[in-house]
Amino acid sequence: MTQPRLVEVRRKVLSKNDAVAGALRRRFQDAGVCVISLVSSPGSGKTAFLETVLSAMRKEFRVAALVGDLATENDAVRLARSQAPVKQICTGTICHLDASMVSNALDGWNLTELDFLFIENVGNLVCPSSYDLGENARIVLLSVTEGEDKPLKYPSIFHGADAAIITKMDLAQAVEFDAAAAHRNINAVGPGIPIFEGSAKTGAGLEAILIWVKSQVKA
Amino acid sequence: MTQPRLVEVRRKVLSKNDAVAGALRRRFQDAGVCVISLVSSPGSGKTAFLETVLSAMRKEFRVAALVGDLATENDAVRLARSQAPVKQICTGTICHLDASMVSNALDGWNLTELDFLFIENVGNLVCPSSYDLGENARIVLLSVTEGEDKPLKYPSIFHGADAAIITKMDLAQAVEFDAAAAHRNINAVGPGIPIFEGSAKTGAGLEAILIWVKSQVKA
Repeated sequence: MTQPRLVEVRRKVLSKNDAVAGALRRRFQDAGVCVISLVSSPGSGKTAFLETVLSAMRKEFRVAALVGDLATENDAVRLARSQAPVKQICTGTICHLDASMVSNALDGWNLTELDFLFIENVGNLVCPSSYDLGENARIVLLSVTEGEDKPLKYPSIFHGADAAIITKMDLAQAVEFDAAAAHRNINAVGPGIPIFEGSAKTGAGLEAILIWVKSQVKA
Repeated sequence: MTQPRLVEVRRKVLSKNDAVAGALRRRFQDAGVCVISLVSSPGSGKTAFLETVLSAMRKEFRVAALVGDLATENDAVRLARSQAPVKQICTGTICHLDASMVSNALDGWNLTELDFLFIENVGNLVCPSSYDLGENARIVLLSVTEGEDKPLKYPSIFHGADAAIITKMDLAQAVEFDAAAAHRNINAVGPGIPIFEGSAKTGAGLEAILIWVKSQVKA
């Protein structure tokens, strides 16, 4: 099915999103808040990662998070345990966050009171890649259980990321994870991006990731 | 961002897809081929499952498969080891298969020479749910590593499925998988659908799944 009409409408939607994202980016810069977004498949560990990061960073920084899902407030409830401000964005049937959803969700928040804002996208390795959210940096997560070939099969989202985190490293041996192949495949579609390995369960790798996150303030 | 124009165009695209899918369904029925589609997140084990099923069923039936991905021919290469006819559909940037892609991929195949055709969708728990492919039945796969909450967070795709398979059961203990919660959540959004538990690694659960697949001929 050729869908020229859909392609044209999508182009306009993306162009409108870019404009809203541009305004958001200026707003973030003016407020001095560094914004990091997270994308991955469903169940790769975005929320577990974020829970660890919020808890670790809030000792030193003012941190907050927006979390996107089609349905449920589960993630906001989980993240609230970190005691950082958290808001859930329920997208209904929409498969990704867009800049306007982020902008609307910020209503009532004073961005100048934040140092870092994390945005967890809907679990989807395809659609979120096209939508700029005004973030400073985007991190893509890949769990060892998904297979080393996923970067090659979902190239856009890895290509558009500024860093990659391989999650659930505690399961690497059980699934015979080939780390060298995963690194090779990530850098084949995202040349030169840093790749971290971690486990929210054991805490391994967190320190290096936090150093990189903090370095994004100047980026 | 309200996107009334996009919603309207999507409605037309889905309506056109339904028409193509309806024609496909009649074509499948006339040829006497039973068509089963598979949907899941990236890395839930659709291809591993299909590899096992094709190998097991081809002793008794004439089976074939279409496999969708944004990029790479990896899955078709893997599935070809089963010696069943397999074709890859590369969707480019499209996040799902549609009925026309399936119809075009069937060019050159004589459907009357098949008993079962499997269609593996792009790994995505959101977008494929809206697109009828003319199949007899749709199976959704959920791996134990993704978390028991996913059916509630991605309700449309579980609601639209005729059966669910919980995959990678060999890892259940390592990830402290709560099977009762997963069953409860699947049936909360897909009331009454059968739920199978399996492992492509150990072969556990395959027999019950094959009985169900074969029963879909009359459905």
